[in-house]
Parts: sequence; structure tokens; C-alpha cells
Amino acid sequence: MFVVKIGGSKGIDYDAFVRDLAQYRDYVLVHGGSSQLEEIATKLGKPPVFVTSVSGFTSRYTDRETLEIFNMVYAGKMNKMLVEKLQHAGVNAIGLSGLDGRILEGRQKEALKIIENGRKKILRGDLSGIIERVNTQLLKLLLDHGYTPVLTPPAISYEGVAINVDGDRCAAQIAVALKAERLVILSNVPGLLRDPQDPQSVIERVTRDQIEAFIETYARGSMKKKLLAAQEALDGGVKEVLLGGARGEAPLTKTLQGMGTRIC
Amino acid sequence: MFVVKIGGSKGIDYDAFVRDLAQYRDYVLVHGGSSQLEEIATKLGKPPVFVTSVSGFTSRYTDRETLEIFNMVYAGKMNKMLVEKLQHAGVNAIGLSGLDGRILEGRQKEALKIIENGRKKILRGDLSGIIERVNTQLLKLLLDHGYTPVLTPPAISYEGVAINVDGDRCAAQIAVALKAERLVILSNVPGLLRDPQDPQSVIERVTRDQIEAFIETYARGSMKKKLLAAQEALDGGVKEVLLGGARGEAPLTKTLQGMGTRIC
Repeated sequence: MFVVKIGGSKGIDYDAFVRDLAQYRDYVLVHGGSSQLEEIATKLGKPPVFVTSVSGFTSRYTDRETLEIFNMVYAGKMNKMLVEKLQHAGVNAIGLSGLDGRILEGRQKEALKIIENGRKKILRGDLSGIIERVNTQLLKLLLDHGYTPVLTPPAISYEGVAINVDGDRCAAQIAVALKAERLVILSNVPGLLRDPQDPQSVIERVTRDQIEAFIETYARGSMKKKLLAAQEALDGGVKEVLLGGARGEAPLTKTLQGMGTRIC
Repeated sequence: MFVVKIGGSKGIDYDAFVRDLAQYRDYVLVHGGSSQLEEIATKLGKPPVFVTSVSGFTSRYTDRETLEIFNMVYAGKMNKMLVEKLQHAGVNAIGLSGLDGRILEGRQKEALKIIENGRKKILRGDLSGIIERVNTQLLKLLLDHGYTPVLTPPAISYEGVAINVDGDRCAAQIAVALKAERLVILSNVPGLLRDPQDPQSVIERVTRDQIEAFIETYARGSMKKKLLAAQEALDGGVKEVLLGGARGEAPLTKTLQGMGTRIC
């Protein structure tokens, strides 16, 4: 059993990814949708707003209108695009958001401590949070009956309100809950890079103890969240986390074979 | 067991509907999203195109781009809005399109015979079709485990391609497949009207034999499809079909109590 997360940035070849993935069995797919979200939200007159927390992580500020657009892009466009491609490739995929059957349950953040123009600020009304419980009963029910779950944020709060959650950390939580052996995170970069400008500078191996230092030194932007997700997965019992690229043919197979960054 | 379809036209009060629905057990919900689709597709520069078939029924012309927007609005915005409201009301809802687990499987129309400017014309490339099979195994699996399915088009063709299908007829097919006793179709009109301009002119009772004549005489626009759906449901063994309004409080309860049009 493994969990694979496919990102939503520009340059990812979803057809090649699905062709590759369709050869595997016994996995859960988690996906992103950030570049589509940016494009569609901007067309709808509501471009995404990003904030930087005091701890240095970047996240999306999610008000109600943003959440509705988020649902459209992630649970509508991206999720059904992947389900259709998988079904076409013979995989009996079933697409679900974290709201459905309360698959991804958690806590809404009370307030976000951010840095704006160099100053600390408290931001309220953000519909985002942290996953604390994964409904493995429903996931196992589907897996046991031959369905392949294709999951996407948002999650749902204990009060029954949709909350935006980070996709990489969401995949890590699912891997932990399902006692998966492996978590594979594919994106438009080929792994953790020593030099963000040089795709040849992939760091091949990272140990658990190096993660925190590497978040500070090498990771930029969303790579920080991927390392944090890797840390959470390893601490929860997942044996290894692989970070790989998804721009060409057979991205999953190549990453499993050792291209990219291996964290264990 | 009953199937309830809630429309997507302007004026429907989804909060009142969910408050009412949350009191019931053992049902499947099917929903529409037409007014939201029109609004969002227009904002995205791709307003819906409607065509009229030679037999007088109106339907949406669905090319690939329209289908993606359809997925965004129906499977993304509307489906997750209803799932969130139901979850908030304590119902363990699970939202699915017909693609997911091949719940709604069918045949893509080869070509559409339409009337344009009074002349017959053949239209190709339309990603729409007819549902021929409902995956009751998956629906029952979910119902038996305490989940309430919330379903939306599109369906999926035997070749694994998404196809747009009519929501009312989709609800009828599900009711037949699940051997439901009752199909309730709620929309922004209070039932079949003798005079489309007069909401007081609801026809209280329609028999199976009257349906065809009433499609010709009283039904306008989407009401024609609702009567066709009613006919398909009755012919498939559903005992009665109720058409009711969803603009005020307790729309389902009022319709079950006899407001609206009863077809049996």
C-alpha cells in the first residue's frame, strides 16, 4: 500500500502520470490544483491571496468565496479530470473531497499569525485548518471493494464546516492513517534541489534528522511544506517518502526507481 | 427508500431544503446546477449553448470545455455545497458524480438531430448521452454503511468518457435501479402548471396515460424533461413521482404531503 500525491503546478503531464499509475495496484491518490486555481480564480475576479506565517510557511488565505472556487477547481475540475482519465485507463477510480463521508476531519485554525510587510499580524476568518482524523473505515471499504480513492482537500471541521488544508500534509496524514509503507510526492520539480535554479542539483538522500535544517537551507516555497509532510509521515510510521518530478513519461516508476529525493 | 432531485434554478432555498431533508432517512439525493452553470460559464467567457431536438426537447450542447466547466459547477461547487450543508446538519453525506466508481454508465449520443432557425440539422461532437446502467452495488454499499449519496451528472460512457446527462432523467434511472417507491423532483416551480404564468394553477394529479399529452399541452422548457423522467420512473416500477416547489420552508415535506403534482 502506498499513497501518491500529484501536484497542481504548471508543467505536469497528467496523461503520462495516469498511464504510469494505471499499472499499479493498492494505492490512494491525492492531488493538487494550484495553477488551475490561480487561473480560474483570477478569471472570476478573485485572485488567490497568499500569506506567510511567522514560522516562514506560505499558505492561501481562504474566505468563503475562495473556498467555493477552491471546490470548483479541486473537487470539480481536477478531481473529475483525474477520475475520468483513470476510468478511461481501466482503473475504477472514485473521487472524493475530505468533506465526503468526513474522510478528512480536523480543526479550523482560530487565527493565523502572519508576517505582512515585515510586521507580525493576526489574521482571522481564514477557512483553513489541520487534519486530525482520517476516516480509514470508508477508505478501506472502498479499497476492499476494488475502488481506487482519488482524494482532494478541503477537509471538514468537527463543526461540519469545510476547511482548506495543505495537500502534501493531507497525503502524509492519509499515508500514516492507512499504515502505508511509502508516500510519493510528485510535482513539477524533480526533488529537493541544492540550487533551486538548477534541476540537476537534486539531493538524492535526506535523513529524518536533516529535515529541519534542510527546510531552512535548501527548501523554497511549497518545498518547505513537502519536507514538513515528509517529517510527519516518517514520524507517523511511514518507511520512506519519495519526492519526484512529474514532467515526463513514467514519473511514478522513475521516482520509485530512485530518481528524485529519498527521505527515510 | 426514495430518490429526491433538487433543481439548480434561481430561487431555490438550499438551506431550507437541507434542514427539511435532514429529518429523513434512506434516500439518495440528486441535484442540478443550471443557474450557477450559466453564471460561471458566462464569467469564464463560455456561455451555455442550448439546442432543441426534433422531438421538441431542449438540451445543452456540451463540448470538452463546457464539460470541464460543468464538472466545476456541478461536481465542485453545487455538490460540495450540499455535502457541507448536510454534514453540518448531521447527515453523513458523500458526494459523487456519475464518473466515480462508474455509478452512472451509458452511451454517448452519436449525433443530435436539432432544429435551428426552423430547419433540421445534425450536430456532432456533443459530449452528452443516455444512462443505461446504475452501479447499485456501490450505492448500496454506501447506504448500508450509513452514508447518504449525493449524486450529480456527468455520467460515464462505456468507453470511459464523461457524458452530460439530464438530471431529472438521471434521478428517475437511479430510482428505478434502486427499486425506490417514490421519486420526488423539486424545482423553482410548484409543480406542473395549467398556465405557466400562474403558480396557482398546479395540476394536482396526472396519470401515466396522460403524460404524453401533457408534455405536448402544458409542459414548457425543463418541465417536459421532468414529465419524461416521471414516465420512465413509473414504467420502471416506481410507484409515484411527485413534482414540487423548493422556494420556501419544508419543501420536501410539503410535497410528500400533497402540495404539487402527483403522477401515478
